[in-house]
Amino acid sequence: MTYHEAGSVEVQRAQARAWFESLRSRICAALEILEQEAPPELFPGTPASFAFKPWNRKSGEGGGTGGFLKGGRLFEKAAVHTSSANGKLTPELAKTLPGGDKQLDYLSTSISLIIHPRSPRVPTVHMNTRFLATSVGWFGGGADLTPMLPEQRSQQATDAAVFHRAMQRACDAHDPSYYPKFKAWADEYFFLPHRNEARGVGGIFYDHLNSGDFAKDFAFTRDVGLALLEAYPGIVRRRMREAWTGQERKQQLACRSLYAEFNLLYDRGTMFGLRTGGNVETILSSMPPMVSWD
Amino acid sequence: MTYHEAGSVEVQRAQARAWFESLRSRICAALEILEQEAPPELFPGTPASFAFKPWNRKSGEGGGTGGFLKGGRLFEKAAVHTSSANGKLTPELAKTLPGGDKQLDYLSTSISLIIHPRSPRVPTVHMNTRFLATSVGWFGGGADLTPMLPEQRSQQATDAAVFHRAMQRACDAHDPSYYPKFKAWADEYFFLPHRNEARGVGGIFYDHLNSGDFAKDFAFTRDVGLALLEAYPGIVRRRMREAWTGQERKQQLACRSLYAEFNLLYDRGTMFGLRTGGNVETILSSMPPMVSWD
Repeated sequence: MTYHEAGSVEVQRAQARAWFESLRSRICAALEILEQEAPPELFPGTPASFAFKPWNRKSGEGGGTGGFLKGGRLFEKAAVHTSSANGKLTPELAKTLPGGDKQLDYLSTSISLIIHPRSPRVPTVHMNTRFLATSVGWFGGGADLTPMLPEQRSQQATDAAVFHRAMQRACDAHDPSYYPKFKAWADEYFFLPHRNEARGVGGIFYDHLNSGDFAKDFAFTRDVGLALLEAYPGIVRRRMREAWTGQERKQQLACRSLYAEFNLLYDRGTMFGLRTGGNVETILSSMPPMVSWD
Repeated sequence: MTYHEAGSVEVQRAQARAWFESLRSRICAALEILEQEAPPELFPGTPASFAFKPWNRKSGEGGGTGGFLKGGRLFEKAAVHTSSANGKLTPELAKTLPGGDKQLDYLSTSISLIIHPRSPRVPTVHMNTRFLATSVGWFGGGADLTPMLPEQRSQQATDAAVFHRAMQRACDAHDPSYYPKFKAWADEYFFLPHRNEARGVGGIFYDHLNSGDFAKDFAFTRDVGLALLEAYPGIVRRRMREAWTGQERKQQLACRSLYAEFNLLYDRGTMFGLRTGGNVETILSSMPPMVSWD
């Protein structure tokens, strides 16, 4: 299905790109405020801010901006990236994508973020939304929360409930069938078969979303980003006043190993990026700052 | 090519298995002696020893013994495992193996080890050797050294030279063509394309080795194990008297990220194990104890 009514695919991509870049600015600003707000008795040092680093693709056209916050007092590491590309799919990869049988050329634009707080009591979060077009266009993405302590890792735990409610509101505003479907998809996607364990409490995941109406699908994707911006800073604000123990820090570093394994073994974005000449620095910036495998 | 002269494949596997298990005992003993010898002013605490944990395969027959040393004073983490299996290959995996077109049943036995020292001045080492048989049998394996500090990571650095000489002696005793071939194969194998960087200084790598003479190939594989046993403790003994800085520890944790990425993205043993019902605990025990991605 194509998105005829909204103009050319280049115009659609430009609209999505403008949104992703504005969302990036808003999210980074919100995180920097949290860096400043964090109680100094738990988070000593100077608040960090984002450094933005543009890059260009080595193959094809396009590039992006990597937003990196490193060694913050509240956020041990945060990455908020946008990128846009015009490229050619390998025939192998094309087979796995809608419309890839008709053409290898693709257009894309996306935002992706991963936030690794220093405190084991503050959950890690990830979000990625994207617009891709081969001979057809579609949106995809997801957001999931990864609390690090065992007692926070149930669906009923407070942070999980807050996060799920925000995602459900974003979904329900557009289609009542979305939330059950996209929540189940996240449960399936953010799962490590070799561990028989989920990486966190999930969230939503969707892909190849094309209702035939570009404006509708784009509005939904915008609301997913806004849901993240609505839910996550609140979760951080509540948790950042809680002291933690050395034992909890150990649990966090061990739990982050699931995150590292997921990204390298299963994550589509990582694999797509590494195979299509993406920027290795931004792709690997999703990896946790410090991890233990005991 | 089959190994007719040495009897049935089960007998060959039993011989290889007995060797791998005896080598395991000798290596673990050598490492435990180093744990005790390490200077206490640099390595405080109690010397650790190996815990041996037998496991059985969930699918097929067989199992192994995981040898784990955790939280040692000299060795932050060490894993020396043996395993033996009778199983059925998936048709997909069978296509990639000699003799896999004739039968899906396979026999295997192997030893694998990874040693992660605490000091950034002591290199990490890995070795794996194995006997596998489908409708034909063969040996494979490799050993490679991963020094963590930039100045140690050249081919000319002392530890690299010692390690390479030991591997060359093992090769040259059996066939003058082995060392150049197997060293080049290691350089190719232990390389991370997305980083455009080798994980360490290499060593040797070989696979599908079947000269037609089981005794000859088995003797070579024994000598690879003995070369490791000859070279590595000497390297550790020299380096364990050197104090290190916090900056060097940081370099080590960052360099270990290449190790983690290699194992999850490229390592054949890891992938073979995860796909054929191997033991997840032993497979993941190769991961570094603490890693940073800054």
